[in-house]
Amino acid sequence: MASAANAISLSLSIAAASSSSSRRDNYSYSPESSCLSFRKPSGGVSLRLRPVTGASLATRRSSCIVHATSAPVMDPSPVSESGSAGAPTVVEVELGNRSYPIYIGSGLLNQPNLLQRHVHGKRVLVVTNETVAPLYLDRVVEALTQGNPNVTVESVVLPDGEKHKNMDVLMKVFDKAIESRLDRKSTFVALGGGVIGDMCGYAAASYLRGVNFIQIPTTLMSQVDSSVGGKTGINHPLGKNMIGAFYQPQSVLIDTDTLNTLPDRELASGISEVVKYGLIRDAEFFEWQEKNMSALLARDPSALAYAIKRSCENKAEIVSLDERETGLRATLNLGHTFGHAIETGFGYGQWFHGEAVAAGMVMAADLSYRLGWIDDSLVKRVRNILEQSRLPVAPPESITMEMFRSIMAVDKKVADGVLRLILLKGPLGNCVFTADYDRKALDDTLQEFCKS
Amino acid sequence: MASAANAISLSLSIAAASSSSSRRDNYSYSPESSCLSFRKPSGGVSLRLRPVTGASLATRRSSCIVHATSAPVMDPSPVSESGSAGAPTVVEVELGNRSYPIYIGSGLLNQPNLLQRHVHGKRVLVVTNETVAPLYLDRVVEALTQGNPNVTVESVVLPDGEKHKNMDVLMKVFDKAIESRLDRKSTFVALGGGVIGDMCGYAAASYLRGVNFIQIPTTLMSQVDSSVGGKTGINHPLGKNMIGAFYQPQSVLIDTDTLNTLPDRELASGISEVVKYGLIRDAEFFEWQEKNMSALLARDPSALAYAIKRSCENKAEIVSLDERETGLRATLNLGHTFGHAIETGFGYGQWFHGEAVAAGMVMAADLSYRLGWIDDSLVKRVRNILEQSRLPVAPPESITMEMFRSIMAVDKKVADGVLRLILLKGPLGNCVFTADYDRKALDDTLQEFCKS
Repeated sequence: MASAANAISLSLSIAAASSSSSRRDNYSYSPESSCLSFRKPSGGVSLRLRPVTGASLATRRSSCIVHATSAPVMDPSPVSESGSAGAPTVVEVELGNRSYPIYIGSGLLNQPNLLQRHVHGKRVLVVTNETVAPLYLDRVVEALTQGNPNVTVESVVLPDGEKHKNMDVLMKVFDKAIESRLDRKSTFVALGGGVIGDMCGYAAASYLRGVNFIQIPTTLMSQVDSSVGGKTGINHPLGKNMIGAFYQPQSVLIDTDTLNTLPDRELASGISEVVKYGLIRDAEFFEWQEKNMSALLARDPSALAYAIKRSCENKAEIVSLDERETGLRATLNLGHTFGHAIETGFGYGQWFHGEAVAAGMVMAADLSYRLGWIDDSLVKRVRNILEQSRLPVAPPESITMEMFRSIMAVDKKVADGVLRLILLKGPLGNCVFTADYDRKALDDTLQEFCKS
Repeated sequence: MASAANAISLSLSIAAASSSSSRRDNYSYSPESSCLSFRKPSGGVSLRLRPVTGASLATRRSSCIVHATSAPVMDPSPVSESGSAGAPTVVEVELGNRSYPIYIGSGLLNQPNLLQRHVHGKRVLVVTNETVAPLYLDRVVEALTQGNPNVTVESVVLPDGEKHKNMDVLMKVFDKAIESRLDRKSTFVALGGGVIGDMCGYAAASYLRGVNFIQIPTTLMSQVDSSVGGKTGINHPLGKNMIGAFYQPQSVLIDTDTLNTLPDRELASGISEVVKYGLIRDAEFFEWQEKNMSALLARDPSALAYAIKRSCENKAEIVSLDERETGLRATLNLGHTFGHAIETGFGYGQWFHGEAVAAGMVMAADLSYRLGWIDDSLVKRVRNILEQSRLPVAPPESITMEMFRSIMAVDKKVADGVLRLILLKGPLGNCVFTADYDRKALDDTLQEFCKS
């Protein structure tokens, strides 16, 4: 039996909501000390530390979601330098009987109990890709089976990249599952980035009409975005994520050590989504990023852990409020309608998702400004932070206005023929999801960013 | 606007549960008069007749599920001789906010409001096949658009047959949906038998991670079984229904007139599932079938309408209690584990599903008898009613014991490596879903039915 982790989990209770502006200076981040500290811990914020055993981690469903405008907190858990087991931070995604924990920390792949407590049945299928398998597959198999001889683990290694996120490659997962005689009590484990998580999740949703699955995201993009919230699916030649399911995992395990092997361009791609959370709902987080972007790009462990935790908290709260994207959740797609058009028009896999989203966010900011909804200064700040992150701030030259128009016409946010967009409106940290905007302004934005 | 139907709906309230044996002789069916009558209407049964308007049909979610051991009732609605609009009987599938009505009656495709009230958005995709399209597609398009000029209807016509229930053909539905720029507010309509319903349902579950859909089953098999309950999916070369989703429709519209064009062999295939309901939980219904099988085979409209209604009631009650097949719902698979092995081993489409299930039910009854769980007389009654229905009572000669064993090993009812079966146990109308049976008896049954 796996022993319970002697872990410390940190949860934050907000007694009263307070505006971000009033608490703007409550904390600071020091890249030198890799540490966050409070200046003015006021405003009804209370901190509780409590020991978390394996059993209580697995069963508790308490409200540890943090309001998005809460002050950031100093994580008291030791950051492992050597990759040995550290203490996980836990962010809970509250979805009734489909709630699940996100474990965040260094060395978590060396804590078998974190994985094993969420495995159902005796058979596991790890879905991974050619890049990640040599790095982490053995360690995950070890974590699944250590002290657990009844569990057998199969694996399927898919080609790497967004261009392989299609039905033909998905069928390889089903082939392997059926050949391995996996039954309804099996567990699928997604080990890799967003493409692997989306495909494994959709396979888990569909295999025998649904089996359990666990996400182990290994890229910043998947850690801060795609592994959380239950969106799964594959691309169609005519559109991204057109085929899929809403399907929640049993748990998400984020071992921040896996970022050590991530190429710079992919790290930047993930930062694009981190920036997004700040823009749509978390002004303080955006300001923190403006101050600490160089620490993030230098892969400072504490800065990364904080950015991941804060991003997961923002996403978990949105998903809890609107799991199936009837409204609020759509705001997570800031820049994504333009971005998906870039990905589709340019060919999947030419740009990383976060790169396309970065250019898309600049376009969304441009349109928001043309509509008179935000100040010019915010457009500049968006452009600046993305440029500092070494992300593109305009679409590739080969994408024409007509390509944008035709691809955006089949976007999932079109309803009854009308394209709804997420646009910034008001002070930093505010946005709207709306079909009520001037089409002429959208045309002007497309003209501004397209050569033809 | 569609006008409200002046329909009579019949609902049955059971004040107290009573055993089937005590009420065995409460009614009779006369093929001459095409009419059911009560002999001893006792046991706390009350009948209520009430007018049902279009609005109240669409919004009511009252408990009109009938306990499966309730007495059958005489349907007072006029049966249309000419195919003109008759009054629908409504069976409600109770699933909380996913509840939906099943409309059953003659001429329902000529009542546009029954369809239109369940269409979401302005765009509809009708999924049908080459056999059904020439017969009913125009009428369905007319029903969807009559007095409703804002709705546009696209259609995709798939090849007919179980062997086409695969991923390649499913992709044609996605292709058409994307080419037609269908958005999240679209509605998919399944027009056809079980294959079309399963494929259209899974496409609806997956397209843009889920759009609305409506079932219009046109075969007896799909009317009494597959269109109700939300199981959708496709086959894999190595197993039937291995890839799919639980996804509920907005409504099911059963126009019994569509059975007029159904070939005899397909009618018999549907009767196989009707027989199943009697065997697993409804002794009175089985006895009614024994008396009225010739009327069913002669397509007596009232006999068919009653068999469909009673079957849907049984299925609706089971699905309401166990939507995702954690236990009770599995009993609907009596004979299906053997049957699926026959379909897979013999090649999809060689036998109809109900034919394979019929042979499977005889095998299940044989095994139940070998285990000492049922009397020999029940085995004979199972065989007799199926033979009277012109259904096979043994697998094809080409299926070997080894084929049964290897195909059954990947059945969806295998859990942690152990095959669970639905077997008859006790008096007529009782069954168990169990892994606790003597494997030697299973071997003996396979040996009995296989040449090699």
